[in-house]
Amino acid sequence: MATAQRKTDALDRQVKSTSSDIIAADKVEGTNVYNPAGDKLGTVDHLMIDKRSGQVCYAIMSFGGFLGIGESYHPLPWKKLDYDPAKGGFVVNMDKRQLEEAPHYKSSADWSPEYGRRVDTYYGVPTNYWI
Amino acid sequence: MATAQRKTDALDRQVKSTSSDIIAADKVEGTNVYNPAGDKLGTVDHLMIDKRSGQVCYAIMSFGGFLGIGESYHPLPWKKLDYDPAKGGFVVNMDKRQLEEAPHYKSSADWSPEYGRRVDTYYGVPTNYWI
Repeated sequence: MATAQRKTDALDRQVKSTSSDIIAADKVEGTNVYNPAGDKLGTVDHLMIDKRSGQVCYAIMSFGGFLGIGESYHPLPWKKLDYDPAKGGFVVNMDKRQLEEAPHYKSSADWSPEYGRRVDTYYGVPTNYWI
Repeated sequence: MATAQRKTDALDRQVKSTSSDIIAADKVEGTNVYNPAGDKLGTVDHLMIDKRSGQVCYAIMSFGGFLGIGESYHPLPWKKLDYDPAKGGFVVNMDKRQLEEAPHYKSSADWSPEYGRRVDTYYGVPTNYWI
């Protein structure tokens, strides 16, 4: 889908919401992320937002590990995620292997514009997001 | 400013960010909210987002109270907030009295579409946000 069309769709969705579409940002933590086949890939650890526009830029997915040990964090561009009310989670069109090879970090990300562009490039979303 | 223009501005801001514009949603908690005169009105308690579009709809500002006792929560439509990097906080064009009279709640909001429309109407933002 073209970027312009995606943005239009996002705006269309913005202007009509039910109360159940609206959620505290911190309640999104723990939401499951699935692939289209229904396999659970991980859970949303937290969201990164743009302070100026108020748009969620990335969902940081935690993936693997046990009680936080060996866990890794994968920034997923928001545009790659679809919320599926039936599943009560997000769906992203990729498999575990694609996810394993994606940019990720162990403790905290160094969110330079370079890192942002690397994430965007991997997922094939527009890289002109960053200055 | 017309709604369409605001949306265009928001998209323009989205497409060029520095790493310092990008922040974990939960780190926004505690950010100060000022009026244009520089008076502190309150702090952001949490953000409400639309799960589908990923857009922050409301910043819930906590206001008054001491150690959470007597505190009240005021949903502010995101469109009313401007982020001011120099202040390191948000600026909203209203005084304390206008804020006191605005829709607010004590413990948790019942986010019905009716409540959302009431908030939007008070702040003069488009009420067609809700179904």
